[in-house]
Amino acid sequence: MTRSIPLRRVAHPILWVDRERVERNIRCMAEKAERANVRLRPHFKTHQSSSIGEWFRPYGVDAITVSSFQMAEYFARHGWSDILVAFPFNVREIEAANRLAAAIDLHVLVGHAAAIDELATRLHSPVNVWIDIDTGYGRTGIPCESVQLIEELAQTIERSPLLKLVGLYGHAGDTYRAPGKERILQAYERTRVKLEALRAQLPRERYPQLLIATGDTPGCSLAPDLGGVDEVHPGNFVFYDLMQLHLGVCEPEDIGTVVVCPIVSIYNHRDELAIHGGAVHLSKESLVDESGLTIYGRAIRLQQNGWDPRDVIGEVVSVSQEVGIVRVSSDVLQNLAVGDLLGILPVHSCLAASALAEFRTVEGEPLDVLG
Amino acid sequence: MTRSIPLRRVAHPILWVDRERVERNIRCMAEKAERANVRLRPHFKTHQSSSIGEWFRPYGVDAITVSSFQMAEYFARHGWSDILVAFPFNVREIEAANRLAAAIDLHVLVGHAAAIDELATRLHSPVNVWIDIDTGYGRTGIPCESVQLIEELAQTIERSPLLKLVGLYGHAGDTYRAPGKERILQAYERTRVKLEALRAQLPRERYPQLLIATGDTPGCSLAPDLGGVDEVHPGNFVFYDLMQLHLGVCEPEDIGTVVVCPIVSIYNHRDELAIHGGAVHLSKESLVDESGLTIYGRAIRLQQNGWDPRDVIGEVVSVSQEVGIVRVSSDVLQNLAVGDLLGILPVHSCLAASALAEFRTVEGEPLDVLG
Repeated sequence: MTRSIPLRRVAHPILWVDRERVERNIRCMAEKAERANVRLRPHFKTHQSSSIGEWFRPYGVDAITVSSFQMAEYFARHGWSDILVAFPFNVREIEAANRLAAAIDLHVLVGHAAAIDELATRLHSPVNVWIDIDTGYGRTGIPCESVQLIEELAQTIERSPLLKLVGLYGHAGDTYRAPGKERILQAYERTRVKLEALRAQLPRERYPQLLIATGDTPGCSLAPDLGGVDEVHPGNFVFYDLMQLHLGVCEPEDIGTVVVCPIVSIYNHRDELAIHGGAVHLSKESLVDESGLTIYGRAIRLQQNGWDPRDVIGEVVSVSQEVGIVRVSSDVLQNLAVGDLLGILPVHSCLAASALAEFRTVEGEPLDVLG
Repeated sequence: MTRSIPLRRVAHPILWVDRERVERNIRCMAEKAERANVRLRPHFKTHQSSSIGEWFRPYGVDAITVSSFQMAEYFARHGWSDILVAFPFNVREIEAANRLAAAIDLHVLVGHAAAIDELATRLHSPVNVWIDIDTGYGRTGIPCESVQLIEELAQTIERSPLLKLVGLYGHAGDTYRAPGKERILQAYERTRVKLEALRAQLPRERYPQLLIATGDTPGCSLAPDLGGVDEVHPGNFVFYDLMQLHLGVCEPEDIGTVVVCPIVSIYNHRDELAIHGGAVHLSKESLVDESGLTIYGRAIRLQQNGWDPRDVIGEVVSVSQEVGIVRVSSDVLQNLAVGDLLGILPVHSCLAASALAEFRTVEGEPLDVLG
């Protein structure tokens, strides 16, 4: 069933994965978690691939995070039996929750009494519950200052025979808004400290084993020590991307994936070329680079079995639905031809991976991916 | 096989289509094209649905435009036999081109000699060719001023026994950059005039039946008369969206689709709520509204079988991979509950439709869609 194909047979955009780099990223994070005696429950929304999931197993990873019940069902089918759906529980998905809870150790995230009521009323099997805490990011979760409300939720959870309160979950997403290593580390530490303080305010005798968990890629990658929480849930670190590079979180050689795109036209008069690779492949995620240019990716030269991270040759300066426009220097352009393949380093690897149906390693092996 | 389901059974984001509005949009454009004696070859990349495709047939539409060979193969399977792949021909897809050319009247777009050479060398069946002309938008195509280069391409096409030169294609995409009706109409007219002038510069005796075609939704929607070209290829008008509304191209009651999203959490302290509906459903396309706010959609109240276009109740102010945050007023928030469904008017309906796997009419009928 698995069939290796050479790069020259690629006809349309695919996600190309450098397994060596990805495994190094995994090993690095897993060892850091182990050193701190913290459980790594990696977020698999980034890759959504059962094949890549297997690469975590040698490091003792046996529990994962996903962001939808569809992903949870996919990974459960592929042998994962401890899964956190780190998404404010959608009460309309109670049937999926029941299917999963009957088969695996299901963990859900709740941040509203109505969701707990629905779970308590309609579940048939035990479910582990994390309370979604807003430590200042302001996306989802109950503000960590609302201690009384949080304790009420905790009590409601504990009263239900099928619900087990396991922990407090805070996503330190503000590390994405904090340029520079120091500010990222401050944001990460702020979340950790707030979760710790919140736990200390809840009656210990009633919740003796309450866990705290956080884990964005910027914070977990830069923190010299992951200690002080019970679990970390980073996802993006498996691939990294231009956003992480821009934030100072990774180095060019850590980026583990490119989108392979055929050149479809060349415009010598304006030093640009068109690729098959647009918003439906790269997403419309952009960043403003050092020179003030808004970019949707960077183009890199491909070799037969990978790429040299220093071999960036241009920027994706615009994307429409299917087409990307890449700006390159005129001397580079002279050596490119219609039909050549370029690698595009994505701005946001999670969204590019989610958009693409076909993943291959740089050796040409197909990787299974949620369709 | 088709099964109508009520709104209350919806568990995750789906595209909800108001067939009456969509058919009105189709009728309006088709009648306008007919009045001008111009062929409407609608761009089906917007909906990618064979069911919605059928709604065009009563208006005599028998030729379509798509933006990938995958879409072309899908619509060919669903009975369309005259299809233009309006994408700079990707020489790596010659096999798909051969499959299609053997079965239907295939039209391709080329803007580079290398693509023509590849077609001329490797095709087994006749293919119609349009030359991709850049009339000033600067995305793809040969600059319309490069008359000599264009004529050389035309001659190369004509020399190949399987290639038939049918026309000059210019995408007036700069109408999307021109706020206000007057500037859109100027941009549209500029493209049309340039294509006409270009055709006049090519030897008529050699290309007596050369067509010209254009057709962005802003221009085609606002132009009082579509005359002066042979074909128009608009796509977005079938649904319209917030971008078109923002440009002044459509009215709220013309928007034919919303993304139905469940409310998963409510944050009374900040007048916001979280929906299941994020970047992988709505895309990351945004616009800056009148008040300077960057939005990813607008929330609208849903009724059992549709929505009132004036019933907008909030804005999507941020999206992560799966979650959207909607800002609403506190009095509106009081009447909403976790588990309720909201409609999200998309900023860019083409990208939202492309991202969603499930389409239903407001009556609950499933629509077939390219998976």
